[in-house]
Amino acid sequence: MHSLQFTAESSSNGMVERDFTLGEVPGVLWSPASGAERAPLVLMGHGGGNHKKHQAMAGRAQLLVTGCGFHVAVIDAPGHGDRPRTRHDEQEIAVMQRAMAAGEPVGPVVVRYNAHLAERAVPEWQATLDALQELPEIGTGGPVGYWGLNMGTAIGVPLTAVEPRITAAVFGLHWPDVLAEKAKQITIPIEFDMQWDDEHIPREAGLALFEAFASAEKTLHVNAGRHKQLPRFEADSGVRFFARHLRRVATSPA
Amino acid sequence: MHSLQFTAESSSNGMVERDFTLGEVPGVLWSPASGAERAPLVLMGHGGGNHKKHQAMAGRAQLLVTGCGFHVAVIDAPGHGDRPRTRHDEQEIAVMQRAMAAGEPVGPVVVRYNAHLAERAVPEWQATLDALQELPEIGTGGPVGYWGLNMGTAIGVPLTAVEPRITAAVFGLHWPDVLAEKAKQITIPIEFDMQWDDEHIPREAGLALFEAFASAEKTLHVNAGRHKQLPRFEADSGVRFFARHLRRVATSPA
Repeated sequence: MHSLQFTAESSSNGMVERDFTLGEVPGVLWSPASGAERAPLVLMGHGGGNHKKHQAMAGRAQLLVTGCGFHVAVIDAPGHGDRPRTRHDEQEIAVMQRAMAAGEPVGPVVVRYNAHLAERAVPEWQATLDALQELPEIGTGGPVGYWGLNMGTAIGVPLTAVEPRITAAVFGLHWPDVLAEKAKQITIPIEFDMQWDDEHIPREAGLALFEAFASAEKTLHVNAGRHKQLPRFEADSGVRFFARHLRRVATSPA
Repeated sequence: MHSLQFTAESSSNGMVERDFTLGEVPGVLWSPASGAERAPLVLMGHGGGNHKKHQAMAGRAQLLVTGCGFHVAVIDAPGHGDRPRTRHDEQEIAVMQRAMAAGEPVGPVVVRYNAHLAERAVPEWQATLDALQELPEIGTGGPVGYWGLNMGTAIGVPLTAVEPRITAAVFGLHWPDVLAEKAKQITIPIEFDMQWDDEHIPREAGLALFEAFASAEKTLHVNAGRHKQLPRFEADSGVRFFARHLRRVATSPA
């Protein structure tokens, strides 16, 4: 059992950024610069090929921290960011790159590789959440959200299916293969993003994954455009979603 | 050619409400209490069986007027609100009520009757817009939005298809029959609402109408729930949509 070690700290724009490690897993915790009061926590999963401090992560964190007063944590997924790649990682990445270069469908290998990464990442996220909840400014029993698209959904759906501490989640941009069965176990409120003209994920596939969630409260946001053209206003929408669902219990006793 | 006659005026919560008539068409114009500067205009179409001051209209108007500084106008649809019903209106309403009482599908008669109402309402809306743009606080050349669900979409889609002054619209909760061909002529940004468990409108029907719009910028919001369970936060979303699309040109010369 590792404990969380802070390795660096900086501050800007009302947000404190603390790098940490938990065993071999590097992460970052963004928190409000003002006040040490307990606040809700949002876990964010980054996309494939990216890392914990990618601008999409830092940008959403800024909105959640300074807009809502929440904490936000991201860890590098296996084989991503500051983490080494295994031989298996290298092989799968090469298969993906060959498929892309040849103009062949990448779905099958992305689905397979993301499922493999999720098996490694889910216990890491659970240990990270254990450790974060030992911090007095987070604590146990408070509301926890999860926000991840693409690979962040491939990891977040199986995580949320087994993790009762997560009470609201934003997912999207993924195939239903592998994930739909896990989604059927999820009943918390969700917001789900898909692109109407996604060149990788067929419409029927995106709709099928949205349909699979057992949540009574679920919202689908579809936008015209290709896979990488998710409009920036969907980040604002995700922030409002967490403000609605995490704030209402933010003041309850831990 | 009738001109717009104001018949009553009141004010509350930072919003001025002015009743008007344009010939035989009664309407209401809601405006910011502060300032006579030119501001964008949002036309709103009410739902079937409702009227211009239904709480859904007044509630959205409050958000647009005090939140964005916009003007909002609603007119009673033919056979609705303060307007007389024709014998044809009475017959079609009776057919709808019998279908509902018998638990039979209401779609076919609603689609047919709404198409009939749209034929009467579109020229009324165009005359109303002409008259409203003669007011100095609205003026010509400024941005105009349209927001209507259900019957408000049945009227709004053919209106927007022929009305180049409308530059952004929120639609939803309707069948594609009759409307899809009109939607194919629409290229302005739209936001479209549908309910995932709508007992009247099949999912495929709602998705088909969304698909029909030729707009490069279009967003679909699907929520779990039945026809009348559209979440209240979709009203906030519509307001933000108009704030994004109408404000950016609000200060351009008329």
